[in-house]
Amino acid sequence: MNPLKNDRFLRALLRQPVDVTPVWMMRQAGRYLPEYRATRARAGNFMNLCQTPELACEVTLQPLARYALDAAILFSDILTIPDAMGLGLTFAEGEGPQFARPVRTAADVAALGVPDPHQELRYVVDAVSLIRRELAGSVPLIGFSGSPWTLATYMVEGRGTKEFRYAKGLMFEQPKVMHQLLDTLAKSVTLYLNAQIAAGAQAVMIFDTWGGVLTTRDYAEFSLHYMQQILDGLTREVDGQKIPVILFTKEGGEWLEAQAATGCDALGIDWKSPIAQARRRVGDKVALQGNMDPCVLYASPERIEAEVATILASFGQGSGHVFNLGHGIHQHVDPERVKGFIDAVHRLSVPYHQAVNA
Amino acid sequence: MNPLKNDRFLRALLRQPVDVTPVWMMRQAGRYLPEYRATRARAGNFMNLCQTPELACEVTLQPLARYALDAAILFSDILTIPDAMGLGLTFAEGEGPQFARPVRTAADVAALGVPDPHQELRYVVDAVSLIRRELAGSVPLIGFSGSPWTLATYMVEGRGTKEFRYAKGLMFEQPKVMHQLLDTLAKSVTLYLNAQIAAGAQAVMIFDTWGGVLTTRDYAEFSLHYMQQILDGLTREVDGQKIPVILFTKEGGEWLEAQAATGCDALGIDWKSPIAQARRRVGDKVALQGNMDPCVLYASPERIEAEVATILASFGQGSGHVFNLGHGIHQHVDPERVKGFIDAVHRLSVPYHQAVNA
Repeated sequence: MNPLKNDRFLRALLRQPVDVTPVWMMRQAGRYLPEYRATRARAGNFMNLCQTPELACEVTLQPLARYALDAAILFSDILTIPDAMGLGLTFAEGEGPQFARPVRTAADVAALGVPDPHQELRYVVDAVSLIRRELAGSVPLIGFSGSPWTLATYMVEGRGTKEFRYAKGLMFEQPKVMHQLLDTLAKSVTLYLNAQIAAGAQAVMIFDTWGGVLTTRDYAEFSLHYMQQILDGLTREVDGQKIPVILFTKEGGEWLEAQAATGCDALGIDWKSPIAQARRRVGDKVALQGNMDPCVLYASPERIEAEVATILASFGQGSGHVFNLGHGIHQHVDPERVKGFIDAVHRLSVPYHQAVNA
Repeated sequence: MNPLKNDRFLRALLRQPVDVTPVWMMRQAGRYLPEYRATRARAGNFMNLCQTPELACEVTLQPLARYALDAAILFSDILTIPDAMGLGLTFAEGEGPQFARPVRTAADVAALGVPDPHQELRYVVDAVSLIRRELAGSVPLIGFSGSPWTLATYMVEGRGTKEFRYAKGLMFEQPKVMHQLLDTLAKSVTLYLNAQIAAGAQAVMIFDTWGGVLTTRDYAEFSLHYMQQILDGLTREVDGQKIPVILFTKEGGEWLEAQAATGCDALGIDWKSPIAQARRRVGDKVALQGNMDPCVLYASPERIEAEVATILASFGQGSGHVFNLGHGIHQHVDPERVKGFIDAVHRLSVPYHQAVNA
């Protein structure tokens, strides 16, 4: 493997000194880029784009050709594991994901196997290997998975939801069945992420998209507990190089202390609270990744720069901050605005690292 | 007017002793009730249901005939004010609200007038008078409005959104224009709620459905500030009877202290944090309304009762708690489950009020 030319991202996650604050964007390979839309059209459908390593690699690298990003993230979907379990995933145009065979009963749950990452999910592992090779050491590659709770909500509902009627219904009414499902998913995610790490992922992120719809009690029992189980089973070092793990619970800002106590290396945070407050709350336990409102990218270059400056000042001196949006970049953002944003993070963060590097 | 036979709800909002914890449900007059669906079908379309005082009264009273609820809430929509401003509100089946003429520019905002509640919104005032008369003092009537920020998001987007591209774009790029819009809306909401109070509303609630998508800074500046402006202009007493005001920012649990400092009487809270924690944070400044996850109503009667017991114990001894869901009741809930829920709140809350009433 090529030696890593830019390791700011990994160093910041481990709270080691950096020259400037590293930056990447959730969904940086996405619909706001015309070149993404072109590849997506060539792929035919979304799952084909995910399942063809060459195409997944192509779109993963697209934003890196435009912007001075400090990390690449595997292009894939969070629902690859339920699909590999045989639930029949499709993406109807403008409708979001749908499963042909939702999981609703104890028998449905008992019938689920743990997918072998080198069989049913081999296309993901192959994509990771290919992307890592194509990156040629320019920046680190992030692997990822959905959290067990998040995957379970889609599997039980059979589709996206705002109400969580079936998933929470199962949780409240048959908690043991829900726990069995979550345990199977935690085992599956652990194998999946370890396979990504073995194939070349240099950091991994767990997306808990729907943990934030739970009560504090249910979040601890049904979401965080299983992310903890995954963390306990992950490969955390390869060839003497640490593999940092980032947890991100959307709308989970009330529970940062509990998240930091899992032993992860970093927390993703949304834009609701100032990052200074999050930093005070987690102390030196973890690094933080965030937290600009993605809608700021609809504003003028001057306004974007002002917001970057505010967030950098809020975090303050020293390492431990990976700049990001608080959510995925929106599809209607002008790619030109993004360039100014990325460059502003690097340029304006210099003073926050001088004392440490002096 | 008839003297009020059941004033538990008003007393709890004012933190005065009560015999049992009062309870009502957001969207208690709604699609989960077959009698509501029948009236809705007779009305033809949703706006006709809102705009015909006899029909609005009919659906308002329906849940009271079934359940031992401690309050009625005016049946209406939060978007009546923008509709009265001439934006052309329609509800496409399964699509949510849409405005024919969204507000996007400084000129659009400057052209907006403040609706006269006794002209364009007379149907609401008439509904309040009629419902109050029909209630005949059985329970108090709650009036309500959307918050200025929440109304502004719909007016600028022209429809519901998950991204807030245009509303936040305007806020970040032309904050003065957004402030002018919010000021016009705050003036309109103040007149509107005062007219509801004059017509017989015995408490009012401000629904800030979308304040929770803002940063702490932007919430204070663009949402809470205008709710404060409304509070400062509301009629707070009629014939020696206090008119309590409830603020509810969905996903606003991080900002309870700031909300309590506005001088409102009570805060609505969602289910994310235990109510004990919210009570510690707001101290004796305000009462609390909440906070059961609406999905608990999909569970068995035993599980529902257990959750009611947990929340009552979490709030603890004394008055200052109005039991409610943390969000509107879902349309697929079985009405039979609701009966058990309401009765459980009354039955299980007795011990929490005995010390005070002894």
